[in-house]
Amino acid sequence: MPYLEVMDKKIYYEEHGKGEVVVFLNGIMMSTASWAPFIKAFSSQHKMLLVDLLDQGRSDKADDEYTQDLHVEMLKELLEKLNYHKVHLFGVSYGGEVAQLFALKYQDMVKSLILSNTTSYTDRSMQDLERSWDYAATTHDASVFFSSTMPGIYSYKFYEENYEWLKEREIQFGKIFDEEWYEGFRRAAKSAHNLNTTERLQKIKVPTLIISSELDTVTPLKYQEVLYKGIPNSKWVLIKDAGHASMYEKPYEFMSLVMGFISTTQFDIKIK
Amino acid sequence: MPYLEVMDKKIYYEEHGKGEVVVFLNGIMMSTASWAPFIKAFSSQHKMLLVDLLDQGRSDKADDEYTQDLHVEMLKELLEKLNYHKVHLFGVSYGGEVAQLFALKYQDMVKSLILSNTTSYTDRSMQDLERSWDYAATTHDASVFFSSTMPGIYSYKFYEENYEWLKEREIQFGKIFDEEWYEGFRRAAKSAHNLNTTERLQKIKVPTLIISSELDTVTPLKYQEVLYKGIPNSKWVLIKDAGHASMYEKPYEFMSLVMGFISTTQFDIKIK
Amino acid sequence: MPYLEVMDKKIYYEEHGKGEVVVFLNGIMMSTASWAPFIKAFSSQHKMLLVDLLDQGRSDKADDEYTQDLHVEMLKELLEKLNYHKVHLFGVSYGGEVAQLFALKYQDMVKSLILSNTTSYTDRSMQDLERSWDYAATTHDASVFFSSTMPGIYSYKFYEENYEWLKEREIQFGKIFDEEWYEGFRRAAKSAHNLNTTERLQKIKVPTLIISSELDTVTPLKYQEVLYKGIPNSKWVLIKDAGHASMYEKPYEFMSLVMGFISTTQFDIKIK
Amino acid sequence: MPYLEVMDKKIYYEEHGKGEVVVFLNGIMMSTASWAPFIKAFSSQHKMLLVDLLDQGRSDKADDEYTQDLHVEMLKELLEKLNYHKVHLFGVSYGGEVAQLFALKYQDMVKSLILSNTTSYTDRSMQDLERSWDYAATTHDASVFFSSTMPGIYSYKFYEENYEWLKEREIQFGKIFDEEWYEGFRRAAKSAHNLNTTERLQKIKVPTLIISSELDTVTPLKYQEVLYKGIPNSKWVLIKDAGHASMYEKPYEFMSLVMGFISTTQFDIKIK
Repeated sequence: MPYLEVMDKKIYYEEHGKGEVVVFLNGIMMSTASWAPFIKAFSSQHKMLLVDLLDQGRSDKADDEYTQDLHVEMLKELLEKLNYHKVHLFGVSYGGEVAQLFALKYQDMVKSLILSNTTSYTDRSMQDLERSWDYAATTHDASVFFSSTMPGIYSYKFYEENYEWLKEREIQFGKIFDEEWYEGFRRAAKSAHNLNTTERLQKIKVPTLIISSELDTVTPLKYQEVLYKGIPNSKWVLIKDAGHASMYEKPYEFMSLVMGFISTTQFDIKIK
Repeated sequence: MPYLEVMDKKIYYEEHGKGEVVVFLNGIMMSTASWAPFIKAFSSQHKMLLVDLLDQGRSDKADDEYTQDLHVEMLKELLEKLNYHKVHLFGVSYGGEVAQLFALKYQDMVKSLILSNTTSYTDRSMQDLERSWDYAATTHDASVFFSSTMPGIYSYKFYEENYEWLKEREIQFGKIFDEEWYEGFRRAAKSAHNLNTTERLQKIKVPTLIISSELDTVTPLKYQEVLYKGIPNSKWVLIKDAGHASMYEKPYEFMSLVMGFISTTQFDIKIK
Repeated sequence: MPYLEVMDKKIYYEEHGKGEVVVFLNGIMMSTASWAPFIKAFSSQHKMLLVDLLDQGRSDKADDEYTQDLHVEMLKELLEKLNYHKVHLFGVSYGGEVAQLFALKYQDMVKSLILSNTTSYTDRSMQDLERSWDYAATTHDASVFFSSTMPGIYSYKFYEENYEWLKEREIQFGKIFDEEWYEGFRRAAKSAHNLNTTERLQKIKVPTLIISSELDTVTPLKYQEVLYKGIPNSKWVLIKDAGHASMYEKPYEFMSLVMGFISTTQFDIKIK
Repeated sequence: MPYLEVMDKKIYYEEHGKGEVVVFLNGIMMSTASWAPFIKAFSSQHKMLLVDLLDQGRSDKADDEYTQDLHVEMLKELLEKLNYHKVHLFGVSYGGEVAQLFALKYQDMVKSLILSNTTSYTDRSMQDLERSWDYAATTHDASVFFSSTMPGIYSYKFYEENYEWLKEREIQFGKIFDEEWYEGFRRAAKSAHNLNTTERLQKIKVPTLIISSELDTVTPLKYQEVLYKGIPNSKWVLIKDAGHASMYEKPYEFMSLVMGFISTTQFDIKIK
C-alpha cells in the first residue's frame, strides 16, 4: 500500500486513473476510503489523488495539537515527493479550508480550486459547535457522538429517507471508532479553531468553483457567499435538496460538477 | 402572583393589557419571563396571556413523562377557569406544536393561530437532535448544554455579533439551572418525540400566520412550507437574517408581524 | 372632495382615521383609489393620508417631463399646508423611491419609513423595461399595455389563480385609460429614469422596514438587499409566494407588516 | 454544409466531436450558431449534435402555424436518418420543452435528459408574456423587440455589467432580423402556447438533470421545482447569480454541469 514519509510521519495516499491530477482533501470525519464510490467515474477522465492527512484514515496520528497549516506543509512535501508541480485542489468542508490555506501559500502549485460546503472563517458559532462535538467525542460513545454530529451533517430529508442506513453506520462506526480515533477527531476539530482567510481571499487568482447545498446547516450558503464575493471570478453553484454531506446525498450532481469543472477549466470559453 | 390549580398542578400565568386575548406559548427553554421585553408594546393593543406550561418557568414540574397532549388539556382547563371561550393562539417552536394540537382538538376556542419557527412533525433528524440535547442535559453542565443547543438556536450572524451577551447568559443560566430544571427540560424534549400533525393540518380553518426565519437551522423553512401547504389559506412570512430565536434576534420584525396579524384578522380586507 | 393647491397644481388627498399620520405613496399605476380595501383596517389604528401625486389619480397632470424630485417638493408643501411636521412614510415600488428621496432631503419630517417592493437605483435593465412599457403606452391599446406590464406585476401563481379577475380589470381599464392617462404614465415612468440613492442610503437614520416578495420579478429581492445593507438598522421581511403587487396578492400579510411596524416603532423593545 | 430533408423541409445540423451523442435543442431566439463558444470544450469529450429546428437559424421556415409536437416528429426523423437510435437530449428553455415532449413520446430513443431554464407548462402569465413578445415582433423594430425581451432574458446583474455588449448585439440583430425572422419568431412563440406536460412527467424514467438560475424571471425556479417533483429521481442544481440565459451569463458553470452530467450517467455511483 502506498505510503510516503512526510515530515517524519507516514502518510497514506492512493492514485487512480490518468490525466489532470486532482487532489481530494477529506472532510473531518472522512478518509481516502470515503471516496471509493466515486473512483470508477472520476478516474475515467482525470487522475485522482486521494490522501489521508495527519489524524485521518490510515495515516499516522499527530503527537500533539496542530493547526491546519501543518496539513498545508505536509501536503506540499507529499506533492513534491510525488513530483507533482501543479495540481487541481478539491476540498470538502474541513478539506476545503486546507485547500484555501494551501492556495494562499503555494498558489503556483495550484491549477484550479474546488471548494465544497466549506467556510473561510471559523466563527463563534462554529467554535461552540466544535466545543459540543469535542465534548461528544470525549465520551467515546458512538451513540452520543452520532446524535451530536449527524443531524448537522445530513439534511433532514436524507435523514428521514435513509434512517436505517444511518443507524447501520452508527453501529459499524461504533465498532471501529476507538479511543485513538476520537482523540484524533478532537485534535482535527481544534486545528480549525482559528481559521480565517476572509481578508486574503482576493489573492486567490486560479479558477475556483464553489459548491453549496441548499439544506447545509453546518456551513450554510451564506458562508460560501463570502467565498464567492472574496475570490475574484469564482463560480458558484448550489445543489438543491442536499445537506452538508452533499457528496453522499447527491453523488451525481456532485460528481457532475467536480468532473465537469476540471474538464472545462482546460478550455477558454469566450462569450463576448 | 397569579397561579391557577389545573389538573392538580399549580400553573403560573400573567395577563397584560386589554382587548383581544392572545395566548403566548413558550418555546422549550422559555418561560413567561422570556416575554418581558415585549409586554409594553404588545399590551398597548391586545390582552397578552402569558403562561408557563408544566415543567416551564414558575409552574409545577411534572411527576412523570408526558406528551404535548397533556399541555393541550391543561391549557383548555386554564382558559375555561379564566372564562376565555375564544382566544388567539400564538406559539413559538415547541409552543407552536402545542398550538397546532390545541387547534386540532379545540378549534372552537381558537380565533386565529400564529405559528413561529415550528414544525408539524418531529422527524428522525429532530429525534436525534433531541437525543443529543437530552444527553447534554444529563451532564447538568451549563457549558456542555449551551454549546450543544445555542449554535442551533441563534443564527451565526447573531452569534458573532452578540457573543459577549450569549456568554453572559451562559454564566447566568449556569447559576440558575439546577438538576430539577434539567430533568424538566428532558421531559419536555421527550414530550414532542411523536408529534405528527401533518396529515391533519387541512382541518385547521382559522386564520393562520406562519413565521419563518431565513437562517433557522433547527426548524428550517421547509418545515414551515409543510404547514403553509397543509393549512388552508394560511399566510406565510419570512424574517430575513434571523435564526430560530427570531423573537430575540429581530424583535421589531417579529412583534410587527404578531401585533399586526392580530389587528388585521379583525377585518375583512377584500381585494376582489 | 379634498384638494390642495400645491406648486400651482391641484393635488388630491384623503385622510382616514386618527393617530399617527402615515403617508401612503402609490406605485406607478396606482392612485388613492387603490387603497380602498385597506382603509377600514388601517384607519382603525392610525391616520391614513392618501395622496395622488402629479400625474396620479385625481390630481392634475404635469405640463412637462419631470423627475421624482418634483414629487418630493410637492409632498413637502402638501404636508406643511396640512400642518404635519413629522409623519411615517410608506411607499410601494415607485412610491418607495419617492419615499427614499424625501427621507434623504427632509429627514426631520420623517418618523419612520416603510419601503415595499422597491429599489434604490434604476439600473440598465429597468431602464430597458421602462422603454418597453413606454412603447406599450404609446399604442394607447389596453391589450398591448396589459400584456406588457401585468406578467411582471403579478406573480405567476396569482396570475394563474385569478386570471378572470385580471382579464376583467383589463377590460375595465381599457374603458378608463384615455390618451391623457397613457401620457401621464409615460412621464411618470421617465421620472424615475435616473434614480440612484444607493450611495446615500447610510444617511437614513429613521426606523425603516423593507418588504420584499418572494416572486417579485420587477424589483427582485436583491434590490431590497441593497436597501437593507445600505440603511443602518433597517428591518427586512419577505412575503412568501407573492409577486411585485404584494399588497393585492397577500393583503393580510402586507397590512400586518405595515400596521404592526407603525405600532411597534412607538416602543423601545430591548432584548439586551 | 450539412442539411437533411425532413418532412419535406431542409433542416440544418452540425456535428462536432466523438463519443456519446448529445443533441442540443435551442432556446427560442437561438440557433446552432449560438453554441459556437462551447464547441471546443464540449466536443473534446462527447459528440455534439446541433440542430436548427423549423423556423430556427438556417433551417426552412414553416408554412403555417404549428405546435412543438411538429419539432418532436422532425427531430425523430432527423435522428433516424442520421442512424442515431439512442441519444442524450439537452434543451434550453423552449428547447427544454421540446425535449420533454420528445422524451414522453420516444423515450426509447433517449439515454438522458438535461432540462435547463425551462417549464412543463405555459401558464397564463407566460401566455400574456408571449402576447407582449408577439406584439413587439409585429413592429419589426429591433429597439422595441429588444427592450421587450432582453430585460427578462438576462439577469439585471449581467445587464448592468455588460450593457455595451448587449447594445452592440441589439444593433447587430437590428441589421439581421428581417420580416421573415420576426414572423418565424412569432410562430415559434405560439407553438408553445398550449404546452402542458406536468401530469405526465412521472412517466420520464431516464436520468434527468434540471438546471435553474437564481435570477431567472422568465422561468423562475418554481417552474423547475415542478419538473423536479414530477420526474422520478431527477437531479436539480441551481446556478447562482445568473438569469434565464445562464449559458451565456455563466458559461463555465453551465458547461461543467452539462459535460459532467453526460460523463457521470455512464457510471453507477453507489453510496448505499
